[in-house]
Amino acid sequence: MGKQWVVYLSGEIHSDWRERIQTGAKSEGLDVFFVAPVTDHAKSDDCGVNILGKEENSFWHDQKASGINAIRTRNLIESADIVVVRFGDKYRQWNAAFDAGFASALGKSIITLHDDELTHALKEVDGAANAVCQTPEQVVDVLKYVTEV
Amino acid sequence: MGKQWVVYLSGEIHSDWRERIQTGAKSEGLDVFFVAPVTDHAKSDDCGVNILGKEENSFWHDQKASGINAIRTRNLIESADIVVVRFGDKYRQWNAAFDAGFASALGKSIITLHDDELTHALKEVDGAANAVCQTPEQVVDVLKYVTEV
Amino acid sequence: MGKQWVVYLSGEIHSDWRERIQTGAKSEGLDVFFVAPVTDHAKSDDCGVNILGKEENSFWHDQKASGINAIRTRNLIESADIVVVRFGDKYRQWNAAFDAGFASALGKSIITLHDDELTHALKEVDGAANAVCQTPEQVVDVLKYVTEV
Amino acid sequence: MGKQWVVYLSGEIHSDWRERIQTGAKSEGLDVFFVAPVTDHAKSDDCGVNILGKEENSFWHDQKASGINAIRTRNLIESADIVVVRFGDKYRQWNAAFDAGFASALGKSIITLHDDELTHALKEVDGAANAVCQTPEQVVDVLKYVTEV
Amino acid sequence: MGKQWVVYLSGEIHSDWRERIQTGAKSEGLDVFFVAPVTDHAKSDDCGVNILGKEENSFWHDQKASGINAIRTRNLIESADIVVVRFGDKYRQWNAAFDAGFASALGKSIITLHDDELTHALKEVDGAANAVCQTPEQVVDVLKYVTEV
Amino acid sequence: MGKQWVVYLSGEIHSDWRERIQTGAKSEGLDVFFVAPVTDHAKSDDCGVNILGKEENSFWHDQKASGINAIRTRNLIESADIVVVRFGDKYRQWNAAFDAGFASALGKSIITLHDDELTHALKEVDGAANAVCQTPEQVVDVLKYVTEV
Amino acid sequence: MGKQWVVYLSGEIHSDWRERIQTGAKSEGLDVFFVAPVTDHAKSDDCGVNILGKEENSFWHDQKASGINAIRTRNLIESADIVVVRFGDKYRQWNAAFDAGFASALGKSIITLHDDELTHALKEVDGAANAVCQTPEQVVDVLKYVTEV
Amino acid sequence: MGKQWVVYLSGEIHSDWRERIQTGAKSEGLDVFFVAPVTDHAKSDDCGVNILGKEENSFWHDQKASGINAIRTRNLIESADIVVVRFGDKYRQWNAAFDAGFASALGKSIITLHDDELTHALKEVDGAANAVCQTPEQVVDVLKYVTEV
Repeated sequence: MGKQWVVYLSGEIHSDWRERIQTGAKSEGLDVFFVAPVTDHAKSDDCGVNILGKEENSFWHDQKASGINAIRTRNLIESADIVVVRFGDKYRQWNAAFDAGFASALGKSIITLHDDELTHALKEVDGAANAVCQTPEQVVDVLKYVTEV
Repeated sequence: MGKQWVVYLSGEIHSDWRERIQTGAKSEGLDVFFVAPVTDHAKSDDCGVNILGKEENSFWHDQKASGINAIRTRNLIESADIVVVRFGDKYRQWNAAFDAGFASALGKSIITLHDDELTHALKEVDGAANAVCQTPEQVVDVLKYVTEV
Repeated sequence: MGKQWVVYLSGEIHSDWRERIQTGAKSEGLDVFFVAPVTDHAKSDDCGVNILGKEENSFWHDQKASGINAIRTRNLIESADIVVVRFGDKYRQWNAAFDAGFASALGKSIITLHDDELTHALKEVDGAANAVCQTPEQVVDVLKYVTEV
Repeated sequence: MGKQWVVYLSGEIHSDWRERIQTGAKSEGLDVFFVAPVTDHAKSDDCGVNILGKEENSFWHDQKASGINAIRTRNLIESADIVVVRFGDKYRQWNAAFDAGFASALGKSIITLHDDELTHALKEVDGAANAVCQTPEQVVDVLKYVTEV
Repeated sequence: MGKQWVVYLSGEIHSDWRERIQTGAKSEGLDVFFVAPVTDHAKSDDCGVNILGKEENSFWHDQKASGINAIRTRNLIESADIVVVRFGDKYRQWNAAFDAGFASALGKSIITLHDDELTHALKEVDGAANAVCQTPEQVVDVLKYVTEV
Repeated sequence: MGKQWVVYLSGEIHSDWRERIQTGAKSEGLDVFFVAPVTDHAKSDDCGVNILGKEENSFWHDQKASGINAIRTRNLIESADIVVVRFGDKYRQWNAAFDAGFASALGKSIITLHDDELTHALKEVDGAANAVCQTPEQVVDVLKYVTEV
Repeated sequence: MGKQWVVYLSGEIHSDWRERIQTGAKSEGLDVFFVAPVTDHAKSDDCGVNILGKEENSFWHDQKASGINAIRTRNLIESADIVVVRFGDKYRQWNAAFDAGFASALGKSIITLHDDELTHALKEVDGAANAVCQTPEQVVDVLKYVTEV
Repeated sequence: MGKQWVVYLSGEIHSDWRERIQTGAKSEGLDVFFVAPVTDHAKSDDCGVNILGKEENSFWHDQKASGINAIRTRNLIESADIVVVRFGDKYRQWNAAFDAGFASALGKSIITLHDDELTHALKEVDGAANAVCQTPEQVVDVLKYVTEV
């Protein structure tokens, strides 16, 4: 057998890019274990107040959530061999860029995934990446190549 | 005397926020040494091709630059005690969020600086910060408090 | 399946807070492995003299025990993804605050659990935490959210 | 000459123990540089709201302060060769025990300073210490011995 | 039983040295798990352009490949207990020497494998090694000795 | 169940102390996995020349062996949660003291095992230990206490 | 002023590339401190036997030297912010590639310097570099850009 | 000028080997800063009881001292670039071997200094060393070579 690889999928939660990668990896029979942040947008935004109580002030509402979400994302990034960071054209996605920087400082391998039009804005993030992909299928191909036994 | 503190100023290079912080720190007599990325936008974007030769393809043009800029930013972040990350309302600023994640993984103290309207989009980055400021003057006040002998 | 999470339960050993968390996690079907210090008070205090011989002087009696207890607690904290630190209103609980600081320096995720009346005294510890809970059930909810597959 | 040693003085801010140590070290001509948290109680508690704006809720009042204070304490502990942690009989002093745990995980040398009556409650913290002192003068003697050229 | 050892086989991909080691380990019944870079020369050189698109310029052709290959080699070296580095008399093999330096900085155990005529040129690499072997069979003997239960 | 603990048994290979510990642990049903250096004295001393060829000079004879033995001992110490270091009254046993220092710098838990007459000579090593035992049975008791589920 | 940068110059010692870089940096008034291995070829090769005594066997002759040279190179690489690695067309230069890998694992910034004809053979090393230069003057330009105050 | 090197001199305190090295380094004009443990035997053994109070039991007498001495030795080893470890033919010197192991795990450069008759007993410690010297003058020669500007 080979080594089981852990891949963290960071980034926008508004398209099916994660599903396409996981489905592709499965059909290729890759021994890859995928992890990701909570992808239900409202659930992720409100986890703090849902569990710890309501906050009138939106700043503290968000602080409660980010503390809890960080438990998940930091641990999963630390457990990962490869971190894939997806950027779409909507939303600020500063959390995704933050994840990329965090992973980079930990020496993790990074694959970025985005359309060509975002290239210039992502130059520093891409500069830190091992591979820059434009489609989820390319990501699967990189994983397939890298994990072959 | 006291310890000399090193503060890295990361973020948008289109306003005078760095000057306001450095001026404020100086007038308070703080023993703080400020470092920053190259803030001349064109110079920073073109440093790769200016030194290593022209690239037709903009992706490689940017890769050449980001590799060189990373020498500066990574070393300065590593040398810093505190990293201040400024977000404005223009531009993607993914490099700033990346710097924040990088600094966070290294255990650096982080101060974010941005207007309130960006709060929700910055919730994960603010969640990793020690202090969230709205004005450069607040940043100076934090530095003054933290560095008092 | 998902990743198995390891959670270290640090703090007072005079209430059933650990049992409530473990029972709650089990009924939610969470893939969490709980570890804790030795919770039998007398056994923990006397492990040094019980194994290595009696000491007349209480300082050395305690030193013998703390060395042995540290083997357990340090290794378990290092193995943990999340450290939960419980503070009650009795006892000094300096060992719990020590564990929190230890975990924080190692970059572990931290959840504190205490009544509201201790908030001001715990401000620095809570400041280092990802989440501040008031009931064991809230801790279970955080674990459930964070570990969902 | 010899190496300059950096010593962080953590703990209660309600007695003159820091002054006694610094005065003693000075009269012995020790090449020791002392650092400490902000010791003005109200200033330390209110630094968050004083700089970043008022909070009605005391939890968030304290969170604002602890984030800023952590910038100072974490950086100073990291810069220190030795961390002295003082415990008195008043107050919870969980922040001091937290500092001790933080320093311990970083491999710092630790000296605790407290009356004998607190010994049993401090057994785990003392267990992590290199020396357990009862007077500031003893701390000075340890520093003198350890730093002799 | 005993611990399972992970051994990374770095170096030239033009002889059967890896097969000889793996076959030898298997016949000795060693509990060793072998990992290696992609050993198909063309596949390795072209993985970048095969997945991410053609590059006219050979420098960028190679950069695309090395980024992807680094995902595999860095992760496998980090997972290894022992790194075996084979040098033959053909080719520059700078990637092998690079792997050896990378492994050395990470504190990995290193076994070099090469003919005697390369000894002087490899003096710094051999100086960092735990054992210098001349045949794959010697490597197997070292592994057998080191991993005995 | 509980966590499986890994314990490295370092030290003199001329008495049955390892067997007594392993037998005791087994009869107590402890979930402990024991590892150790090669304990066949001649085999350990000659592993270098046996595998890599004869050396006339005893210094190089020993260097060849120590390089290979270090592959085993360093990896096993790094994999261990606890390092037990046994000192007898014969032989210099500098390798055992070296192992103790190595383990200490890595933050491993350490248990020393020796007769009382060696106490003064071992004061620095004992000072770095979590527990100082006089019999293998005491070591088993410490392991039993520390690993209880 | 600015930060003083430390730059380690690794690689072939048969051309004047180091002098050209240092001269260039000086004329640009850069605040850069350059360090390098011992560049006297015979002195470097024979330092072991010159200090510690003759060895008949060339393998041990070289081992004595590489151990001593490693004291210098490892410490200087660790002290450096940037490591420049020069490859010429003569000699195996495995020590230079080793230095590059060592520096890479430590997270150092790397600049490679070589003619275009070596590009394919250096693809993995260049892949790990922040910048790939063809002349010492380009290296000076990178240093000038990166270190500007 | 060049880099200032810090060299820690560990080992027996019953001969003038430290003075010979420091004198030799001074006459060669080396920019080396030497540090060492407290070399007054009685002062070192009794520092614990001298400062913290008498202990009837010799074990605790020694524990008090070793805790304090460790503050000095651990900090000085961590500050050193090179650790020289001297072994004589008298005394157990387990503290010296411990220091060597500690330094080795931290990746420090190590030079051992001892007569040839101790070679076999020191094989593991010498195996971890960069250079094995027989006279203090040889140590000076190594330092001179390694630190040349």
